Amino acid sequence: MKAVVVENHKAAVRDIEKPVPPPGEVLIAVRLAGICATDLEIIKGYADDSRPAGAPRVIGHEFVGTVVEGGKSLANQRVVGEINCVCGRCDMCQGGLANHCRKRSVLGICNRAGAFAEYVCLPEQNCVPVPDALTDEEAVFAEPLAAAIQITRQVKLESRTNVAVLGTGRLGLLVAQVLATTGCKLTAIGRQRATLALLDRRRIRNVHIDELTHGVDYDVVIECTGSPSGLPLALKLVRPRGTIVIKTTCAEREPVDLTDLVVNEVTLLGSRCGPMRDALAMLATRRVDTTGMVSRTFPLADAEKALAAASEPGTMKVLLKP
Amino acid sequence: MKAVVVENHKAAVRDIEKPVPPPGEVLIAVRLAGICATDLEIIKGYADDSRPAGAPRVIGHEFVGTVVEGGKSLANQRVVGEINCVCGRCDMCQGGLANHCRKRSVLGICNRAGAFAEYVCLPEQNCVPVPDALTDEEAVFAEPLAAAIQITRQVKLESRTNVAVLGTGRLGLLVAQVLATTGCKLTAIGRQRATLALLDRRRIRNVHIDELTHGVDYDVVIECTGSPSGLPLALKLVRPRGTIVIKTTCAEREPVDLTDLVVNEVTLLGSRCGPMRDALAMLATRRVDTTGMVSRTFPLADAEKALAAASEPGTMKVLLKP
Repeated sequence: MKAVVVENHKAAVRDIEKPVPPPGEVLIAVRLAGICATDLEIIKGYADDSRPAGAPRVIGHEFVGTVVEGGKSLANQRVVGEINCVCGRCDMCQGGLANHCRKRSVLGICNRAGAFAEYVCLPEQNCVPVPDALTDEEAVFAEPLAAAIQITRQVKLESRTNVAVLGTGRLGLLVAQVLATTGCKLTAIGRQRATLALLDRRRIRNVHIDELTHGVDYDVVIECTGSPSGLPLALKLVRPRGTIVIKTTCAEREPVDLTDLVVNEVTLLGSRCGPMRDALAMLATRRVDTTGMVSRTFPLADAEKALAAASEPGTMKVLLKP
Repeated sequence: MKAVVVENHKAAVRDIEKPVPPPGEVLIAVRLAGICATDLEIIKGYADDSRPAGAPRVIGHEFVGTVVEGGKSLANQRVVGEINCVCGRCDMCQGGLANHCRKRSVLGICNRAGAFAEYVCLPEQNCVPVPDALTDEEAVFAEPLAAAIQITRQVKLESRTNVAVLGTGRLGLLVAQVLATTGCKLTAIGRQRATLALLDRRRIRNVHIDELTHGVDYDVVIECTGSPSGLPLALKLVRPRGTIVIKTTCAEREPVDLTDLVVNEVTLLGSRCGPMRDALAMLATRRVDTTGMVSRTFPLADAEKALAAASEPGTMKVLLKP
């Protein structure tokens, strides 16, 4: 089958063996997959991996597909997949923190072949059926949307909470829409006029980064710029004793001056994956609207072009179709 | 009067004018002052300051002294001083976060002449009388001890909470003693054998940094190494969804890889000044014992030698006597 394999900081479409699902797992025919900033960072060198030498490193973790083998109750179902594959027995799994399983593999990121391929394997329990009301182009947003929803599980947002979403790219647009549903006082801060226009259409207050007024003072800042410069700016925007939620993982690093964090007693909160079922429900009930958020769809065979397009500033979601 | 003045990244003892307390402030004759890592960082360039050109930048914020002018009820009293001088009217002051006053000056750090001098001014309300039971050599620890106590106001520590204090220098030894009073499962991690011996004498479990076993996994890590390498190590020691409290402010910065923070959904909490009255009470009731924690006392006139001594690795508290 065709798959996107990363080797020596390059991604290439290769013909590799079609996977065979081990016991407890299903084989999924990928219908559509989405390119995430994390995929681009993995190509640059982000994320450890300890697969056996020679095992191809297939990337991709946002997808919608059809179960074609295994998983009786899921046979022929359209599904999205929870990306953390867990042991169920370690202290984290037993303690209600299964996403932090000590022995986990993570689809397309760590020790598990990903979804930029014709077929992918996942544990049956990781598959979540997609409601018929959703198109593939909508359902493919479930994974990043779940990551956006995770923020609301970590920070208490009330109607009087002043919140800034820093970055209005692929993830920032989802985060802004999720936070808008909480009723908090929300401002999205971005660089690309086109993405700010998408927020206007959803009646979400937004401001261009160059037009930030002096003395801004947010209770909570969500850092989803995908850039090493995001955190230093977030530290300037947050109020004393405020909270920064950080979603960005970068391969490159800049020196960060954490003096402001100490002096202003700021809380910095790392945030990763979230609940897939809630994400599908938000999409199905139209509380989150992905209209205008897909820049382009490429055939899987053109994945190299697709990855290049996704790297351009201001590009929205780029999709791959096997 | 003699005072330690910082100019062009150097500290020198100078003869400057004895200050005159403005209305609402008292004049304090300094009895003893302590050198803190922050003083050394200010000399290197840490902390902004917007004093009028020509106003000498006197450093020093840990002290015990005698009120010699102003403040009727405090006349001739021995006092320590809360270092944040606040307006009482801004949103932070009115919102119960006076330490984060928008218009504050901070003794010896920002916009206010410090205590490495024969005399120092402070608002009357900032002065806290010292119980007779305490010697000057004990009372001079009140300010850093208050900063240690602040941690217990920010993080919930229970008997089952696994806590590591990273760094057993001047601040780390105080932090370890304060946290020991909470009954949490405490381990102090340090580099200097002499300071670990001080912890042994206080029956606080400790381990040399080179003898850390693999797979340590703390619920809470208190970073008080005073070094830019402290945070990366803290990120390796903390468990998924754990908390790091960061006390270190450095002039220099290293690139910090915050990937672990995001992936493990760690909370990073900045922590600064704390309650001076609680600190004096802890000293007076001997819950914190400063025995063996003073390396040397220098006359104020020899402050340059004292600062050099305080910069040596493994040096405990160095005191200045006007």
